[in-house]
Amino acid sequence: MVVGAGRLGGALALALSAKRWPVRVWARSEEARRRVRDWGLGLATEKDIASARVCLLCVPDKAVSPAAEEWKPRLARGAALVHCAGALSLEALGAPRGRVLGSFHPLVAVSDARDSLAGNSVALSTRSRWLREVLERMAKDVGLHALRVKERQRAAYHAGAVLSAGGVVAALSAAVEALRVAGISEEEALAALLPLTRSALRGVEARGLAAGYTGPIARGDAEVVAAHLAALPPDAAAVYRPLSLRGLSLVGHRLPAEALARLKTILD
Amino acid sequence: MVVGAGRLGGALALALSAKRWPVRVWARSEEARRRVRDWGLGLATEKDIASARVCLLCVPDKAVSPAAEEWKPRLARGAALVHCAGALSLEALGAPRGRVLGSFHPLVAVSDARDSLAGNSVALSTRSRWLREVLERMAKDVGLHALRVKERQRAAYHAGAVLSAGGVVAALSAAVEALRVAGISEEEALAALLPLTRSALRGVEARGLAAGYTGPIARGDAEVVAAHLAALPPDAAAVYRPLSLRGLSLVGHRLPAEALARLKTILD
Repeated sequence: MVVGAGRLGGALALALSAKRWPVRVWARSEEARRRVRDWGLGLATEKDIASARVCLLCVPDKAVSPAAEEWKPRLARGAALVHCAGALSLEALGAPRGRVLGSFHPLVAVSDARDSLAGNSVALSTRSRWLREVLERMAKDVGLHALRVKERQRAAYHAGAVLSAGGVVAALSAAVEALRVAGISEEEALAALLPLTRSALRGVEARGLAAGYTGPIARGDAEVVAAHLAALPPDAAAVYRPLSLRGLSLVGHRLPAEALARLKTILD
Repeated sequence: MVVGAGRLGGALALALSAKRWPVRVWARSEEARRRVRDWGLGLATEKDIASARVCLLCVPDKAVSPAAEEWKPRLARGAALVHCAGALSLEALGAPRGRVLGSFHPLVAVSDARDSLAGNSVALSTRSRWLREVLERMAKDVGLHALRVKERQRAAYHAGAVLSAGGVVAALSAAVEALRVAGISEEEALAALLPLTRSALRGVEARGLAAGYTGPIARGDAEVVAAHLAALPPDAAAVYRPLSLRGLSLVGHRLPAEALARLKTILD
């Protein structure tokens, strides 16, 4: 059973239902209930709730703990309670008191419930072997690659997800700031830079991080790096510097010792 | 005339030729000359060189200055000399001595000469009105959006281009490092994170930087940010921290004052 008829709840419910999983969706508001009917899915009745084997909470992070408290008494004894929030540990579901708990966090920005989830990954976490097998089967059926994430490593995992989305946007915003200094508007800068960023990502996809990393650091060109730092406003330089050091850790081993030393001096 | 039959030289020559510009390509090695013939383009003869109006140097950055010295005496008096290197000022072409100089730097990673340049941007720089008009017409004909970059702003412009390509790859490598700490291999991490990064870029394309920036900073969730910093290894935290501060400058104005102050304390 899926609780919540938002974009993620809808996408999971549709994908599982298409693979003949017996899905029912619980939605509170009349608007959400109408969405569920529009998707051609069944709304959860009291009987469905009492007989559900797995209850997937697809609600905003802040609603997970209250929803867990609300749902625990309504579910059958053996039913598992699972949240879909990347940032939250299993503790967000409250004390287990004999109930099997888990987390199922698809690494995907769902912009419409009808979007396909296939080709993305999902982070799974649970202490129950039975639930892990169920969640892995779910993942496989909807085309998600399952990653097992241990509870004590969840924060690092989630920080990585955040770095790859918001973090990349922040790096891009420093790039746009640099172009603003050169008299180019945000709109023109994004139109110019987004294709570059995308081609860099294709390079990483094809050749990995170290070989896909390009630019003056990769060429060991300390003069260009020094000119960049001199030209950037402080807030963009504050991003350029650590990202360059990070790049240096990717490619430093293949640079001549002298270039490596000069770059370190400039960047430190 | 295009000097150099590498990927960029080939792509420009093919695109200009398709729009009926009278293009000839000069290539030194027999292998490069064969490539030019394979593309169906004409090789430059001595007569072509003497009658060329614009000479585009499509050579590696380090070869620009020697190539300029080599070509200046061979070209007609009124012919313009133009390089295609983003990092280099016009000074890389040496003293003008009456010759019109310029730079034409397409913001695009060309992986094959037959790739289309259309939809990307190009940074133009020249002190000559005549040459600027020619370069703008070239840009328009091959589908490149022309950005005018002043010489004294070139380093900032180029730093932005580098941030949007290598810088983004460096941010992604910190994300992969975070997932490594969570027991996930580089290969699995990239497969999981690249779709997230791409969807974040689509968000920026559709809604701009500030609205396309997502994650705990955008939600004002200081607790999650503190947990991330505690969980990350120092080298990944050294990237996470400045990128988060940069994100905060994008969205801080829409956060409650208390959340903003807490985030600043954690990140500073």
